[in-house]
Amino acid sequence: MSVLSLADVYRARCRIEGRVCRTPLVESQSLSARAGTPVFLKLETVQPTGSFKLRGATNALARLAGQGCQKVVTASTGNHGRAVAHAARALGIGATVCMSTLVPGNKVEAVRALGAHARIIGKSQDEAEHEALRLVREEGFAYVPPFDDLHVIAGQATIGLEIVEALPDVANIVVPLSGGGLFAGIAFAAKSANRAIDLTGVTMARGAAMHASLVAGQPVRVEEVETLADSLGGGIGLENRYTYALTRDLIDETVLLDEASIARGIAHAYRHERLVVEGAAAVGIAALLDGVLPFGRIKRGPLVLVVTGANIDMDQHRRIVDAASTQPASHTAS
Amino acid sequence: MSVLSLADVYRARCRIEGRVCRTPLVESQSLSARAGTPVFLKLETVQPTGSFKLRGATNALARLAGQGCQKVVTASTGNHGRAVAHAARALGIGATVCMSTLVPGNKVEAVRALGAHARIIGKSQDEAEHEALRLVREEGFAYVPPFDDLHVIAGQATIGLEIVEALPDVANIVVPLSGGGLFAGIAFAAKSANRAIDLTGVTMARGAAMHASLVAGQPVRVEEVETLADSLGGGIGLENRYTYALTRDLIDETVLLDEASIARGIAHAYRHERLVVEGAAAVGIAALLDGVLPFGRIKRGPLVLVVTGANIDMDQHRRIVDAASTQPASHTAS
Repeated sequence: MSVLSLADVYRARCRIEGRVCRTPLVESQSLSARAGTPVFLKLETVQPTGSFKLRGATNALARLAGQGCQKVVTASTGNHGRAVAHAARALGIGATVCMSTLVPGNKVEAVRALGAHARIIGKSQDEAEHEALRLVREEGFAYVPPFDDLHVIAGQATIGLEIVEALPDVANIVVPLSGGGLFAGIAFAAKSANRAIDLTGVTMARGAAMHASLVAGQPVRVEEVETLADSLGGGIGLENRYTYALTRDLIDETVLLDEASIARGIAHAYRHERLVVEGAAAVGIAALLDGVLPFGRIKRGPLVLVVTGANIDMDQHRRIVDAASTQPASHTAS
Repeated sequence: MSVLSLADVYRARCRIEGRVCRTPLVESQSLSARAGTPVFLKLETVQPTGSFKLRGATNALARLAGQGCQKVVTASTGNHGRAVAHAARALGIGATVCMSTLVPGNKVEAVRALGAHARIIGKSQDEAEHEALRLVREEGFAYVPPFDDLHVIAGQATIGLEIVEALPDVANIVVPLSGGGLFAGIAFAAKSANRAIDLTGVTMARGAAMHASLVAGQPVRVEEVETLADSLGGGIGLENRYTYALTRDLIDETVLLDEASIARGIAHAYRHERLVVEGAAAVGIAALLDGVLPFGRIKRGPLVLVVTGANIDMDQHRRIVDAASTQPASHTAS
């Protein structure tokens, strides 16, 4: 773990202070009753861009801006892309988001609405990324990786700091698991405070690259499949530098969820927590509802579920909560 | 305004620190575009009991507990009742909530789930309040008023402090108007920082006691009518001591909304802000969408809408957002 120090996380917090929300940590009555231990929700849904990604992007960009960087590039059209665009505008530097011609118009418009330049090129995400790297090599842009970067990881780690500072007795933290930047950051900060804090990663059953890599003992590629937790998709990179090893060293359990479970998590968050959450953000709630968290450990003390973001298509959200409300009560009641 | 000082508000903040959430102030892209000036949402929806009421109740109860008080009583079955129950449990004192036999079972259960004693008595809200006052006279309970109390007002005023500290250039603050505790507190704190900050109260067109009282030049009674903004209902008390005069002295405009407008506010919050809000909390968004805020003033600078709470019946919420999604796009689009 020597690649990262707690001082790096404090530096990140200084850089992002005032640009990123120190998010609420709120106890859930319904989930506490269900788990038999106090359950708290860490609400990254209220970040200005609707997800935790703003922390890592702001830390990375603020550092680059401090070094005189004037323009950054990314190829993400999701939460990381929004975060880079928002942070760049706030810091007064230019941001370009490369995307393929297949990206839907509303996503292109969303990037432009955040003040970033949308560069439409190629017929796949791979080709868009290729263009981003060309801009780095040939035109002096700085690339902001979505997760496998120490400054991005340190930014996400500020969530872990906020959790242990507000709830020093926390015994379990449950984190959505994707590329591992969020997981590694939170786990590092939490275990720096108390090695005994149990860290669980939750992801979807199919197409989870980090889980497959942990099982294989090295970064591997997986086939991407459609999922409600679309923010958890994508590879971790065969040349992964940081997040694979950090996650491997810091994770206590991995929990895998099917699509029906993720939908139940979204519906429960709406009906019982009055929260709109995206699929990736519902996995902790879903795992708890389905009883697949390691309950023996949970009962030792307070549990925190990191609720990572709110960026779900609202027609899809409405279909999910409507469907849940017509199902037997056992699926959504608390 | 000499009944309240800024030091009272700082005292309130010290008392409630760590018990109440310092809530996010998040810019809304869709509403900023609509208003032509930056619009921020102050999200009291994330408070542990789902509304701002926890601030005033916690301040009042913490002060009482510091004086050795062991038991408090209220007759509210809504957001104030929840707040009193939650604050009492956190402070280790007893709370009794008096309610009539007409109060639905789920509301009684909600009070009990928060650890308070539910005292079921009488056939009306008046009779329940009568019993609460009897407990004060005869059994040594302390009464915690829902709004017309300086400690409650000072607690709500911490919202105003947070707004001006985070956004010193704020030019307009829009606050749901009911008994005036929230309005008076926020207006007092904001105008203490900058007398030029414009304070708008928004309430429903029918059954708004404070508005009727301001028009009449003294506290008057109004007939209560059913409204989506049910948290804004109820009288201000003919013997009103503080909130009538403070509101009269501090308010710049009052805006009245019909029910369809409030529903549009709820639907917009869901679809474009990904927020579940109760009717009373949607009035600022609704007023902005309907163009009934004083736009000449708004354009001077940043505007804050106080989004007060999330405690809406979720079946009602789903009906409202479903209905809005089948209406012409002009009603909900941004």
